Amino acid sequence: MIKVGIAGASGYTGVELIKLISNHPQARLETITSSSYKGKPLTDIFPSMRGFESLICEELDAKALSTRVDLMFLALPHKVSMAYAKPLIEQGIKVIDLSADFRFSNRASYEKTYQTHTAKDLLEESVYGLSEIYRDKIKGARIIGNPGCYPTTILLALLPLIKEQILDTKQIIADSKSGVSGAGRSLSLATHYCEANESITPYKIGNHRHTPEIEEILSIHAEKKVSVTFVPHLVPVTRGMISTIYGHVNKSVHLTDIYQAYQKYYAKEPFVRLLPNGCFPSMSHVRGTNCCDIGCHFDENTGRIILISAIDNLLKGAAGQAVQNMNIMFGLADETGLNYVQTPL
Amino acid sequence: MIKVGIAGASGYTGVELIKLISNHPQARLETITSSSYKGKPLTDIFPSMRGFESLICEELDAKALSTRVDLMFLALPHKVSMAYAKPLIEQGIKVIDLSADFRFSNRASYEKTYQTHTAKDLLEESVYGLSEIYRDKIKGARIIGNPGCYPTTILLALLPLIKEQILDTKQIIADSKSGVSGAGRSLSLATHYCEANESITPYKIGNHRHTPEIEEILSIHAEKKVSVTFVPHLVPVTRGMISTIYGHVNKSVHLTDIYQAYQKYYAKEPFVRLLPNGCFPSMSHVRGTNCCDIGCHFDENTGRIILISAIDNLLKGAAGQAVQNMNIMFGLADETGLNYVQTPL
Amino acid sequence: MIKVGIAGASGYTGVELIKLISNHPQARLETITSSSYKGKPLTDIFPSMRGFESLICEELDAKALSTRVDLMFLALPHKVSMAYAKPLIEQGIKVIDLSADFRFSNRASYEKTYQTHTAKDLLEESVYGLSEIYRDKIKGARIIGNPGCYPTTILLALLPLIKEQILDTKQIIADSKSGVSGAGRSLSLATHYCEANESITPYKIGNHRHTPEIEEILSIHAEKKVSVTFVPHLVPVTRGMISTIYGHVNKSVHLTDIYQAYQKYYAKEPFVRLLPNGCFPSMSHVRGTNCCDIGCHFDENTGRIILISAIDNLLKGAAGQAVQNMNIMFGLADETGLNYVQTPL
Amino acid sequence: MIKVGIAGASGYTGVELIKLISNHPQARLETITSSSYKGKPLTDIFPSMRGFESLICEELDAKALSTRVDLMFLALPHKVSMAYAKPLIEQGIKVIDLSADFRFSNRASYEKTYQTHTAKDLLEESVYGLSEIYRDKIKGARIIGNPGCYPTTILLALLPLIKEQILDTKQIIADSKSGVSGAGRSLSLATHYCEANESITPYKIGNHRHTPEIEEILSIHAEKKVSVTFVPHLVPVTRGMISTIYGHVNKSVHLTDIYQAYQKYYAKEPFVRLLPNGCFPSMSHVRGTNCCDIGCHFDENTGRIILISAIDNLLKGAAGQAVQNMNIMFGLADETGLNYVQTPL
Repeated sequence: MIKVGIAGASGYTGVELIKLISNHPQARLETITSSSYKGKPLTDIFPSMRGFESLICEELDAKALSTRVDLMFLALPHKVSMAYAKPLIEQGIKVIDLSADFRFSNRASYEKTYQTHTAKDLLEESVYGLSEIYRDKIKGARIIGNPGCYPTTILLALLPLIKEQILDTKQIIADSKSGVSGAGRSLSLATHYCEANESITPYKIGNHRHTPEIEEILSIHAEKKVSVTFVPHLVPVTRGMISTIYGHVNKSVHLTDIYQAYQKYYAKEPFVRLLPNGCFPSMSHVRGTNCCDIGCHFDENTGRIILISAIDNLLKGAAGQAVQNMNIMFGLADETGLNYVQTPL
Repeated sequence: MIKVGIAGASGYTGVELIKLISNHPQARLETITSSSYKGKPLTDIFPSMRGFESLICEELDAKALSTRVDLMFLALPHKVSMAYAKPLIEQGIKVIDLSADFRFSNRASYEKTYQTHTAKDLLEESVYGLSEIYRDKIKGARIIGNPGCYPTTILLALLPLIKEQILDTKQIIADSKSGVSGAGRSLSLATHYCEANESITPYKIGNHRHTPEIEEILSIHAEKKVSVTFVPHLVPVTRGMISTIYGHVNKSVHLTDIYQAYQKYYAKEPFVRLLPNGCFPSMSHVRGTNCCDIGCHFDENTGRIILISAIDNLLKGAAGQAVQNMNIMFGLADETGLNYVQTPL
Repeated sequence: MIKVGIAGASGYTGVELIKLISNHPQARLETITSSSYKGKPLTDIFPSMRGFESLICEELDAKALSTRVDLMFLALPHKVSMAYAKPLIEQGIKVIDLSADFRFSNRASYEKTYQTHTAKDLLEESVYGLSEIYRDKIKGARIIGNPGCYPTTILLALLPLIKEQILDTKQIIADSKSGVSGAGRSLSLATHYCEANESITPYKIGNHRHTPEIEEILSIHAEKKVSVTFVPHLVPVTRGMISTIYGHVNKSVHLTDIYQAYQKYYAKEPFVRLLPNGCFPSMSHVRGTNCCDIGCHFDENTGRIILISAIDNLLKGAAGQAVQNMNIMFGLADETGLNYVQTPL
Repeated sequence: MIKVGIAGASGYTGVELIKLISNHPQARLETITSSSYKGKPLTDIFPSMRGFESLICEELDAKALSTRVDLMFLALPHKVSMAYAKPLIEQGIKVIDLSADFRFSNRASYEKTYQTHTAKDLLEESVYGLSEIYRDKIKGARIIGNPGCYPTTILLALLPLIKEQILDTKQIIADSKSGVSGAGRSLSLATHYCEANESITPYKIGNHRHTPEIEEILSIHAEKKVSVTFVPHLVPVTRGMISTIYGHVNKSVHLTDIYQAYQKYYAKEPFVRLLPNGCFPSMSHVRGTNCCDIGCHFDENTGRIILISAIDNLLKGAAGQAVQNMNIMFGLADETGLNYVQTPL
């Protein structure tokens, strides 16, 4: 039994983790923390949990946790997480951080996008938690930077083609659509029901913080600087994310090369579903699952390729992938606690 | 040309009024005010207005307005409006107030529900702006308390049956459903997209502030104390309201009596659509119109009656009825500026 | 391991059963049938099932199934199920029918509401599958008539008060709101996205087929004829149901009596969550769970009581309760395969 | 007064036209036709029209209409319209066709995409009704092929840059998102509420019928063959459309060149709103208006340009632009009957 703690229990990612760990056959939820709800029962924050989970929100105290938990999930805001990770690691507690604070290997890139990093050693040590690509490193890691939701859809679709040098790295465009839960539970006019409902709005065009995260990982695997044009859109669904990615292949690539590249990396992966030619993902097909569905439209004449990649932003895009990473770190099969079929239509 | 000002331009009711006055053939929008957006163009608050309206938000200064406007709409919060109404009236400016501040004729009832009233004389003078019922008084009024959205649906359905002594006044139940715009544009967890979406939530069960408003008007027309059981529900639509009302008729009432009662009060009313027996309202049938649709199911054997009443909460439930009242005050036909067919599906 | 078959795999209830049985630790899905999709893989009908379930739709052949399955769920249309139940029972296969065909003990009542019944013996034998109320009978049953979704919300809220003679049986009103999945997956204008979206519509006012189902069960437990005024509303959510029920208590009832009545029947029930006084259910709190949440507002002065009851219409209102009944029939704990926490927000 | 008829009154585009003509100060609705609802009042099909429009659906009889109408809008399915247009034109009735049947100047292209054309002369004569670009030809036309909704968003954003030779014509990608009303009112699984709700689905990837329509117009203005990569997505809103368009500029283009190009074509256009640099369209900003909002993000270093273009698919994307074209044909200002501000949030 892995003893687990979750920090940031009052957010959408936090409660998603709580649900997953509650259902997990090999993990036990020992503590949840929340600075704003300290001392309050979880069911005050999420009444849906009545009868399923009776924990009380605690304060995060690394020392006190050292004997109680093996692993801590940090579902805290960007720039806040870094202060909590270090004392936990020092107490011998493994950390899976769901903010951006431990995703970058290039510190300058992080600092340009976010702020000065106060846990540089850990940043260097941390492993990017894109499970299918970094499984070997995740196994031995003490600290994981769990990927962003947009990067997860885009990287899983692109990396096999980048690594196999199939794709022209200079012409990549990703048009992504995210459900509102991706913006979190804090209040803003953009997430007011009447503003988000019945509308689609592109935002942070050309300067979303996930762009450097995507580009860093692509560049590492391309072994050269890769730039991506990325436009996210807020869409009126609670949970779900889909990216439509446009690119060009390098010369003399055939459809079979593309499928072979995907097979090479994902044939044995339980959570990447490569769709047959002519089939395409839909947000609804992955909702409530930890799957990433990938579909591909390729025009051999022009070399143009269109990739569609869909996830549930709170599962494969956040809490689900985090639990998958926990499974890998603790020697369990990836699917443990994740392979049941969710009920949402 | 009626010269019009609108206070509280940054809310959903405020912008709805702006749209209606912009389209009105006999009214001209002279000023809009907003304490939070003073000095900013309306299009900063509502980009949809680009090209249609170029006004800048001002501060509300009754004296300065005296030569500029004939009528001021106050789309301000409850308990705030009362302070603004008096100086406007003193400057000879008519006032249609969309808060609850001038809806009650019984001050004690207002003060029990809201707070101490600071403009008692005006409260006594003010006319309840349920256009179809109070038309004669509205004509000569200096100040109107525009009805709440829930009361509008419930009162329009009940009053003809109450006034004709058809209904048993002791067994009235109203189960109402309101779109999220009824909660306004300010931020709250209940109106966060992810919380309101895919859910229906009853709230303020047994103690909503519209209950005393409904009961006061019903009691006046019944000439005795009427109590109503009222449960409002927040529903995942932006705009729309529907009330399902349950009651009992007094002895020996026939279906024709019911229809005759409605005909008596609404036969010539452009904005109350009495549906034929067997037809019932739907929120979608009134969206974008100033209409209140009323349908009736009556079981002669048991005396049980079910009334369904639907409006667009921002139109007949707020801004539309306010403009209808302005038309009545200024001797125009009710439909002026309101009788075009809106485009929403 | 219970060997299970599901008939009607292409509907929303069918696929929900498939998901539940796929996740069930003590049951194994042996066959799915569909007349319209015979020979086709389930993943053609529901691409979300890719990788989770690889079954092919078969034809329903009772004889061939006798050695393969212990229990058959029939997720077939009303009036169709009855023809399939008999041969299955004759082969020694237990049946849980999710249509209305085996819900009535009074055949005349069924036939008035639906059509001539062609399996009268089975109708007499069948047990009404409201798990919490009929647990003892369900244990030994060969055939279960699984309750309708509306009756489930209304009966679970009312029966303790009816059985304890707390409620006046002559004044019960139920105002129910159902998500669109309750109308099934077949096509109709009412379920077209643009018609259902952004609207609420009452329907079948005074003559919905669930009324006699509700009244029969209430009358049995009240030991006298009970009538209910019932108005269902179609609401723009995919899954979810909430009923607001209005009634009067009999003389000298106190709040504690009401809570005691509920405690008496539900204290040990895992799937009925009685909310503390002042707390009320919301659709979102039960989505993805098999729970029925019940809240109560009681005015001791007037004797008026308001009950709110919410379920996930596809779980406690259909497939979830069916699996709960299977658990009871096969001696398992009710929660088996049902007590994990679902991920939907 | 222009005497107007509308064929296809039972569809979403048909009823939108009815609403616009009902509100139009210079046009009068003389007849509506519907093959499926012949003899029935419009209010049976759209109860929202009760009290606003009392017309009965007729059969389309060109001869009988010759004295009654000056102009006929055909809101009929693709491939059906062409048979009706000819007899109307022969009776001296002008035609604005909202199907694809008269949009192509290249017949082969139409026939490849749709079917054999049976009114070739009219096809040659017809004018493409993109109001801002073809105003001069529209003025004198007898028959207009009203543009598709996707082409309207994409062409209005691209044409100024294409005509001014600012854009590289070989790298154009359009990622478009359409509300469900774009799929019409006929029934399909894709438009079932439960399937479309809470999901986004790309469809007809690489072979949507609007691609050749877009490419033909772009090629004419570029004076060379232009190919476009176009992926449409079905999104869970009733009405609204937004296209995110990716391209490259030709060498040494500056931001001012781009704005000047737009100014050149749209400075005096009432229905194209060019947003200031850094501002971007949202579906909600154009809902209920005939506006096309265009925003632009340009990176001078890389030459990459991102254009965002949003319309209300039923207005500027169909009925609104059709009325704008009628205004142009009959010498009225474009805004006539279209410039009021709609009420939807």
